[in-house]
Amino acid sequence: MTKPSTRLHVATDLAGGLSIGLDPSQAHYLKAVLRLGSGDPVALFNGRDGEWLGRIDGVGKGWCSVRLQERLRPQMEEGDLWLAFAPIKRARIDFLVEKATELGISELRPVYTERTIVERVNLDRLRANAVEAAEQTERLTVPALREPEPLVRLLASWPAERRLLLCDESGTSPPIAEALRTAPPGPWAVLTGPEGGFTETELDALKKLPFVCAVSLGPRVLRADTAALAALAAFQALVGDWQAKRQR
Amino acid sequence: MTKPSTRLHVATDLAGGLSIGLDPSQAHYLKAVLRLGSGDPVALFNGRDGEWLGRIDGVGKGWCSVRLQERLRPQMEEGDLWLAFAPIKRARIDFLVEKATELGISELRPVYTERTIVERVNLDRLRANAVEAAEQTERLTVPALREPEPLVRLLASWPAERRLLLCDESGTSPPIAEALRTAPPGPWAVLTGPEGGFTETELDALKKLPFVCAVSLGPRVLRADTAALAALAAFQALVGDWQAKRQR
Repeated sequence: MTKPSTRLHVATDLAGGLSIGLDPSQAHYLKAVLRLGSGDPVALFNGRDGEWLGRIDGVGKGWCSVRLQERLRPQMEEGDLWLAFAPIKRARIDFLVEKATELGISELRPVYTERTIVERVNLDRLRANAVEAAEQTERLTVPALREPEPLVRLLASWPAERRLLLCDESGTSPPIAEALRTAPPGPWAVLTGPEGGFTETELDALKKLPFVCAVSLGPRVLRADTAALAALAAFQALVGDWQAKRQR
Repeated sequence: MTKPSTRLHVATDLAGGLSIGLDPSQAHYLKAVLRLGSGDPVALFNGRDGEWLGRIDGVGKGWCSVRLQERLRPQMEEGDLWLAFAPIKRARIDFLVEKATELGISELRPVYTERTIVERVNLDRLRANAVEAAEQTERLTVPALREPEPLVRLLASWPAERRLLLCDESGTSPPIAEALRTAPPGPWAVLTGPEGGFTETELDALKKLPFVCAVSLGPRVLRADTAALAALAAFQALVGDWQAKRQR
């Protein structure tokens, strides 16, 4: 059976025979952008019930319903990897969330550091970016997106068993490949700073924490968004889920 | 001595005592955006003569001259790593060039594949992106940017000693970390496809070439720009120049 080229994330439960109403923007996208109509196939996922093949059984201005036929893939968990990141300016934070989703992050945690300039994080927009990236990249889940919080509070409630990979731009930490060669098993997170980097005080405090593993990302100065995604790619390649075969 | 926070790439030769005329857009940037004036420090580099400390010794509408004082860093070569990439749509190709520059690419080679949709590559715009990224990331060089050419022609003139890391989205190649564990020394390039990926014919032909090393980039489907920068980050971390200490 041919796999539909269109994949959409929905909130509702999915099961065979159900007719699922899409939201107005999804309906518009299918009808006006992709020019799909009754009988055309669409794949749906909700992060819980796997991926389903459905067919459009009704479409109009601002609405579209999809009848579910069969399950294409059972639900699978994404790897457990968090990204804690200082919010950065608009285009770059959108990009960061998109790429982190493609690179398999399970939870996004915006965190205010001393040099963070951005004061407000538009969680709705970031969530929409994460959903779109999950649709594109054939994930079966959308990363969780937490409320922003100050770095101090993040660290105060940090789960002791989760290691935190600190992207240290000072150049004094060991290269990421060297540091991860002896990486202990268990859950991890990656932490990246804002445009101006972490302060020395922050770096000193972070490096004293038992769960922190500080690493360098090479000889060049990387922008904040580049550092985040480069660290994620290197982590996945070295000790993450890039060892696994493609899901489909 | 304090390092200037502003770095600019210029084409002219640099040596102590010279007064360097900036181009109108650079002059505008210093005067109107950064609000710098006579006596303020600026760092200049040209990819040949290292990085120089200069001070603004004259500025007006559309012009600015900088007198060089002393060399801050001797010229250093960037690592020898090419990126051959199928051109993709506007925002994403800009992003790709910026990130490839930050990640240390020495030569950018746009290449037309069977599924490449983008027909025209604006080399001037890409070059401006590369220059800006080099200024930001404290590189002493700007990557060379070659004219786009068809994949067949790129391969026909390929230097036999340079290995080509093929980002194979089919899921059948070994994970990048596994493939690079036995990477031979010598120069490398990374090759990434367009939005729709390589065709089967292209993949078959590429994999038969003795200099090609095909790798997988994990279980998720990555966008073309994500694949390129994730492969570059993983390459630099595993066998590239991320083993080196920060240049400054």
